[in-house]
Amino acid sequence: MKSMSELDDLALVLRPDQILTGAAVARVYDSDAYSVDRSKPTAVVLPETNEEVAAVVKVCVKNQIPITPRGAGTGLSGGAMPALGGVVVSLKRMNKILEVDSVNRRMKAQAGCVNLDLTKAVSHLGLHFAPDPSSQSVSTLGGNIAENSGGPHTLKYGVTAPHILGVTFVDAEGKIYEIGGTAPNCPWPDFTMLVVGSEGTLGIVTEAWIKLTPLPAAVKTALAAFPSVRAASEAVSGVIGAGILPAALEMMDRNILVALEQAFGLKTPPGTEALLLVECDGEESAVEREMTLVAEVCHENHAIEFTLAKDEAERKKLWTARKKGVGAMGRLAPSIVTHDGVIPRSKLPEMLDYVYAVAAEFEIGVANLFHAGDGNLHPCFYFDDRDPKQVEAVVSAGEKIIRRCIELGGSVTGEHGIGVEKTELLLLQFSEDDLKLQALVPLIFGANEVINPCKVIPNQKGCIEHKKRWRGVAW
Amino acid sequence: MKSMSELDDLALVLRPDQILTGAAVARVYDSDAYSVDRSKPTAVVLPETNEEVAAVVKVCVKNQIPITPRGAGTGLSGGAMPALGGVVVSLKRMNKILEVDSVNRRMKAQAGCVNLDLTKAVSHLGLHFAPDPSSQSVSTLGGNIAENSGGPHTLKYGVTAPHILGVTFVDAEGKIYEIGGTAPNCPWPDFTMLVVGSEGTLGIVTEAWIKLTPLPAAVKTALAAFPSVRAASEAVSGVIGAGILPAALEMMDRNILVALEQAFGLKTPPGTEALLLVECDGEESAVEREMTLVAEVCHENHAIEFTLAKDEAERKKLWTARKKGVGAMGRLAPSIVTHDGVIPRSKLPEMLDYVYAVAAEFEIGVANLFHAGDGNLHPCFYFDDRDPKQVEAVVSAGEKIIRRCIELGGSVTGEHGIGVEKTELLLLQFSEDDLKLQALVPLIFGANEVINPCKVIPNQKGCIEHKKRWRGVAW
Repeated sequence: MKSMSELDDLALVLRPDQILTGAAVARVYDSDAYSVDRSKPTAVVLPETNEEVAAVVKVCVKNQIPITPRGAGTGLSGGAMPALGGVVVSLKRMNKILEVDSVNRRMKAQAGCVNLDLTKAVSHLGLHFAPDPSSQSVSTLGGNIAENSGGPHTLKYGVTAPHILGVTFVDAEGKIYEIGGTAPNCPWPDFTMLVVGSEGTLGIVTEAWIKLTPLPAAVKTALAAFPSVRAASEAVSGVIGAGILPAALEMMDRNILVALEQAFGLKTPPGTEALLLVECDGEESAVEREMTLVAEVCHENHAIEFTLAKDEAERKKLWTARKKGVGAMGRLAPSIVTHDGVIPRSKLPEMLDYVYAVAAEFEIGVANLFHAGDGNLHPCFYFDDRDPKQVEAVVSAGEKIIRRCIELGGSVTGEHGIGVEKTELLLLQFSEDDLKLQALVPLIFGANEVINPCKVIPNQKGCIEHKKRWRGVAW
Repeated sequence: MKSMSELDDLALVLRPDQILTGAAVARVYDSDAYSVDRSKPTAVVLPETNEEVAAVVKVCVKNQIPITPRGAGTGLSGGAMPALGGVVVSLKRMNKILEVDSVNRRMKAQAGCVNLDLTKAVSHLGLHFAPDPSSQSVSTLGGNIAENSGGPHTLKYGVTAPHILGVTFVDAEGKIYEIGGTAPNCPWPDFTMLVVGSEGTLGIVTEAWIKLTPLPAAVKTALAAFPSVRAASEAVSGVIGAGILPAALEMMDRNILVALEQAFGLKTPPGTEALLLVECDGEESAVEREMTLVAEVCHENHAIEFTLAKDEAERKKLWTARKKGVGAMGRLAPSIVTHDGVIPRSKLPEMLDYVYAVAAEFEIGVANLFHAGDGNLHPCFYFDDRDPKQVEAVVSAGEKIIRRCIELGGSVTGEHGIGVEKTELLLLQFSEDDLKLQALVPLIFGANEVINPCKVIPNQKGCIEHKKRWRGVAW
């Protein structure tokens, strides 16, 4: 790690209140929400303009100081964790909405804007920003772009990528680019689509033109209780098979329900082993017809109870189980790690059986709360991170689950990215040739060794030692 | 151009019936549908397997013979034209559907399959392949992927890219790769999205996994006649502004109507200067409501006539004007060149005025038949290509129109690609830095000088001379 004296040049480009240092700061910024991996930064900087971001990057390149871009730090694979120390570039002060163009349904905003604030700014126009990660009340546009975030409504509206029209981008040498933008079609190659999902490894996104989506005319939400995870999974296949594309189709298993009852007194009917939350939106009559079909499918699959919200208040209540599920898990153990893998929808029952078996094998608790419609699993392990053996067990169990996802024709990640967590797991999904190709992408953008090192691309210089350090739980 | 003796190695990897040579062949394959640019190949080969494609590529690389991949040759920017001669690799014999997976709504097919045959193969399952270029009854899956083709239904369903899950790909050295595929999520970077739209400059796509889209429950189509292009354009803005997303929203101007009357006796009400074809699809009641709104908007914008198709036969009849428009133009002059540019929808009336002014300035005929909902213009110039002065005028007028598209915040191409036609026009839309970045993309894929030279990337070695040759209309 670089000493502070090597960071003196930062004071030439930022005001003192834009540079945070000290032990407390280092502790706060030593990880994102993927808390099993930690590494302390030397300083955290808070630029307010594109030019300040560019100046910081230039200082860091000149002094060979690692740079880690950061939004709200809600990432779940360690993308905003300063793996090799150095400077964390927080975009939190770049939180202005720059332009709203409701006629063409688009908006330009700075990367530090909170996701939900984007929607709040245009909801009076009947529009919204469709990507809705569970973290949306705190996570930022820049973080959503970096991780190509999904959310409960990804099933119908897609992940972040299709909602990004262009970005302002500071490359790894401190040069400011406009990529994509408001032109209605971008000739090949579409670099915006390379920046989205790159987890800050190419440079720093400071602003973006985003697509705004009309709010649906009608929304209906139902919660169905099932006697088994298998019955709920079959209902998921049944709904999709019936030609319905719900806005959201989310599952919560037994242990989530236990946590919710402990935390909020939320009760489910006796014998409930899984809940399915189904939301349909669109034209009123279409939504009506779809929900009738959804109810039929749920009953055919042995639903114990099917509750359709009658109004907005009831609708919000039904979402409680889904939205507060992870929070409630704090009741079960001191630490949670949420894994992220994807499988073909048809393999859900088989995969969930496997998740329970792996948790039992490693003697750790597991609960599942996930985007069933997308086949996007989120096994949440709960454990005590003060016990190195439990940490090791959680990491090994996670790897085992991801291996199985790939064996079933799935993928190492659905929406949480690769970060530091999964660089080595990429070897399970891709050949060495594939990974060599992938490693060339940062070169196009002139990325260097200081820009968010140790993320996404496996086997980077200096990063194996870093891995060993945290696997040994030395912190 | 290489002599035939240098092509002898081809006979080692293909049967004699898979190798076409001779003057007639050279003449047939000297251009695609962008007929103002021509260059003769030495041979045309017809591989039938991935391995044969790979073997052909290896022979060409070894002998430094240019390779030009080709589907049906319906491209409109010269992408399948053998700019530097050499070998045309036709994918026409690779036309098998390899796997239909209706549960997961996807299908694997060879690149030479005709677009419409893909839909025919699954329509009994209630599914279809959504991209529908006007050439869909002949153009191939591989060509659609190369050009990232759009069509009348792009407004609602998007261009080809979002419908491609993965490809089998022979790179410029003859190595066979699988890119993307059936895994439900692909970690960054998404190479499938780099291959789609690359116009055969990275290698040759031989097979693809495609997404299948459910057929809509209901479809309604209307044709509205307007007293001016401006009134029709304002109706377009009105429809979109009312929150309706039609499946198609197409405009045809006066000269298209003249051609249609001459060719097919198609009559329009007196005073008609523009036709608007509007199609809505989806849930029955939603379509009903939308079409009522569309009719209101058209009447508010002074529609002379509004015809709603009562049944499937009437619906097909209304599409006649749109589908047969370009064909009918054969009545107006011996040659047609269809240009392709995009502007923000709100600039349509202004841009069309400009198109008419440019045609008048260069004394060439122009008709417009285009995707109005996307702001995707298609000025069709009709002229006599035996007159070098007229050819020169068409090229200059086209460039002037594209310049204006960019000034209005648009793009050099909507859906016809860059090919040989627009490599230099990219300089209008992109900075030199941007273009340098773009030129690095082929390097990731190990592309070399033999794979589809002179396409997409400006200022390639040996290509300026080629340009001079055809600009002088020496053929």
